[in-house]
Amino acid sequence: MNLLLLEEADFTAADRAVLSDRRFTHMQDIHRVAVGDSLRVGRLGGLMGQARVERLEGHEAELSLSFDQPAPAKLPLTLILALPRPKMLRRVFQTVATMGVAKLVLVNSYRVEKSFWQTPFLAPEAIRENLILGLEQARDTVLPEVIIEKRFKPFVEDRLPAIAQGTLGLVGHPGNHPPCPRGVNQPVTLAIGPEGGWIPYEIDLLGKAGLAPVQLGERILRVETAVTALLARLF
Amino acid sequence: MNLLLLEEADFTAADRAVLSDRRFTHMQDIHRVAVGDSLRVGRLGGLMGQARVERLEGHEAELSLSFDQPAPAKLPLTLILALPRPKMLRRVFQTVATMGVAKLVLVNSYRVEKSFWQTPFLAPEAIRENLILGLEQARDTVLPEVIIEKRFKPFVEDRLPAIAQGTLGLVGHPGNHPPCPRGVNQPVTLAIGPEGGWIPYEIDLLGKAGLAPVQLGERILRVETAVTALLARLF
Repeated sequence: MNLLLLEEADFTAADRAVLSDRRFTHMQDIHRVAVGDSLRVGRLGGLMGQARVERLEGHEAELSLSFDQPAPAKLPLTLILALPRPKMLRRVFQTVATMGVAKLVLVNSYRVEKSFWQTPFLAPEAIRENLILGLEQARDTVLPEVIIEKRFKPFVEDRLPAIAQGTLGLVGHPGNHPPCPRGVNQPVTLAIGPEGGWIPYEIDLLGKAGLAPVQLGERILRVETAVTALLARLF
Repeated sequence: MNLLLLEEADFTAADRAVLSDRRFTHMQDIHRVAVGDSLRVGRLGGLMGQARVERLEGHEAELSLSFDQPAPAKLPLTLILALPRPKMLRRVFQTVATMGVAKLVLVNSYRVEKSFWQTPFLAPEAIRENLILGLEQARDTVLPEVIIEKRFKPFVEDRLPAIAQGTLGLVGHPGNHPPCPRGVNQPVTLAIGPEGGWIPYEIDLLGKAGLAPVQLGERILRVETAVTALLARLF
């Protein structure tokens, strides 16, 4: 936790907050804060700044707050991701928030196991919790937008063309394709497939929506590693 | 497991192998192979090729083998990593092997907790197991070299200058430094710090050994994410 992220309910005044949950435990056990200590703090969806520990007792801490710094810019990116397996999904939410993805679309694909859609990690509060862990890691305050599309074809045919329009549209896909471009200066729409990859029909449909296949070399990466590697190369 | 990786003990002849362990279970449960099926196969430290399932019974499978393809090239990189916390370390071994790092040096740092050195994941057989998982993911057969340096100063003063000589020497370090270069065409020696970063004394010493600080932007990445992001950007 490189940033203590505050929500509206934590504020007792414009410049005061009281904490008693996971964040309080973390401040005590990991940061071992004392009265008078300073911490980096952010307001969810707002500015970042400094907190001073004013009072520390039993099960709560009171902080005085000042906010003066904007959150880092998001990547100009819509990431379309075939739903990963649940264990991976949790880390992907964190990674996507840490890396600064603006918008994430989770989509079905032929090689996504049906059971993956049953995971509790897709519940709105679980998504939010993991995105917040990612923001705390990165020092960011702004939640990425997350959209869930359980049907591939209607999403790719009806909604993806409008998302991809005016952006560099790419699909990460192993094979004899151009290498993924480096250091681009424009908005990107990037699709990353499931373990085992997109099937040819899906690549065709993504192509018609404006997304061209690019590759990262011979090595097959786990989904989470592929997300980080493609974003680090693109931006 | 995108590659079935065979060791000398698995071979019953130059072109035959019998399997009965984790790899056999994986072939049955995940790949659901039948007699006559083909699988991608590699010889640890050697060539890759195809296996055909010749016999499948009870608790073992017999494969006929042909090898004709070299493993993908390694990155021309020595990665020096402050020892991560155990949970992260396991994934870092896998990621390092998957990404194709040639040589990994795990080193102490002021902000590495002493208890991290006690982890069972540093036992040679545990290191090997996780590197092999990473090779199976990537489709590679060649284990990265792993070196463990429990003392920072003697390593950085006495041995690092020879490693860094003739390479592009870099330290990933947040702050007002040049951005990490993209798409380099030369060997690299790259050091990545612990959670919380290197301390100034360590940055000084790494600098004297030929490693200059570079940054990846405002966002603070987890160690595993930083490794992937820096490698994807460099190569």
